[in-house]
Amino acid sequence: MVVNTTGERIHRVAVELFASKGFHGVGIRELAQHAQLSSASLYHYMGTKEALLAEIMHDCLRRLVSAGREAVASVDDPAERLGRLVALHVLAHAERAQETAVVDNEVNSLSPALRRSVVAARDSYERLWADAIADGQHSGAFRADPDGVARRGLLEMCSGVARWYSSTGPMPLDELAREYALLALRALGATEPAAPDVDVCREIVLTTWGAVGSADFA
Amino acid sequence: MVVNTTGERIHRVAVELFASKGFHGVGIRELAQHAQLSSASLYHYMGTKEALLAEIMHDCLRRLVSAGREAVASVDDPAERLGRLVALHVLAHAERAQETAVVDNEVNSLSPALRRSVVAARDSYERLWADAIADGQHSGAFRADPDGVARRGLLEMCSGVARWYSSTGPMPLDELAREYALLALRALGATEPAAPDVDVCREIVLTTWGAVGSADFA
Repeated sequence: MVVNTTGERIHRVAVELFASKGFHGVGIRELAQHAQLSSASLYHYMGTKEALLAEIMHDCLRRLVSAGREAVASVDDPAERLGRLVALHVLAHAERAQETAVVDNEVNSLSPALRRSVVAARDSYERLWADAIADGQHSGAFRADPDGVARRGLLEMCSGVARWYSSTGPMPLDELAREYALLALRALGATEPAAPDVDVCREIVLTTWGAVGSADFA
Repeated sequence: MVVNTTGERIHRVAVELFASKGFHGVGIRELAQHAQLSSASLYHYMGTKEALLAEIMHDCLRRLVSAGREAVASVDDPAERLGRLVALHVLAHAERAQETAVVDNEVNSLSPALRRSVVAARDSYERLWADAIADGQHSGAFRADPDGVARRGLLEMCSGVARWYSSTGPMPLDELAREYALLALRALGATEPAAPDVDVCREIVLTTWGAVGSADFA
């Protein structure tokens, strides 16, 4: 899908600028200039800069929740479920590094009401992880996770991929996703875990976000 | 140690502002105002905003390297070494969340020459982790870590603590440090690992950064 509406163009430009300079480092005039609009037109389309940030975050979190649900639907084994969630998170954060980094880095830039709604959306996503971990504990596949410490740590580990991954690095992305899944499963106490189905995760990322590395914005 | 020099005051104010608004979100005039100086005086003390950022990063990385070396000195067991490095990293990132977050988030805000020097300092620190992991592989305590993927993932996991840790949370920080060390050791393939000596890590953090939660800036 080609970037073909003004709203999509503003969204894409804002993701790029917020990711590279931080929310507070980007002015309305700069946003408008990059989107080839006047400040008044920008406001007409997107409202305030903060509303634009919240919209970017909600869009990304909606995709993560939908992709995560699809990845674990009809999978009973908690280790396979958690492994797929890890692989999916890694793929999404490597291939959509800018928008995921904005979600991860800028929550505190929002005022309380908008922050609450974004945190609620993030909680929906993290619940997929929490459920897989809890089920793995009940089945005896995983150890206890007091206060969700492992979930939080592993989410941070996987989100960090957005910070450093480069497609020119030595390890192909699918292999990285597989390695991360195995790290996570071992950290949770699984013994000799099997790698999850990364192909199905890649397929879901593709349908959720569109073609990777292109200028498209689905 | 009390904040008692102009340079220390500028450093502290810059850490706070860069951590909360991002490097690009903070202007020289704002920095000067918060440090109760004119822009010209600020420049006299610290040079450019970028030089100030690099100085903050080098200061923090020097402390991390020194603390890390102290934590593993005269410890032969690779699992205890890596466990201490994890615990130390968690404690430092929880208690010095602002300056460590600036190091972790703003490397790309530096121009190439300064970035190279900061990355070299970060590499010195990460080498402590790489050495402990490699030694653990040779001794058979850990699995192989192709391309340093586990090291990188675990560092991101631990650095993430700066993002979410709150001293009002349910888990005491020492216990969190211990849990993270066990997660990391299991992820690396250690079976039924022992928790590292967190007390010694806490002591090192205290001597390296000074008293925690105070207005001090050692």
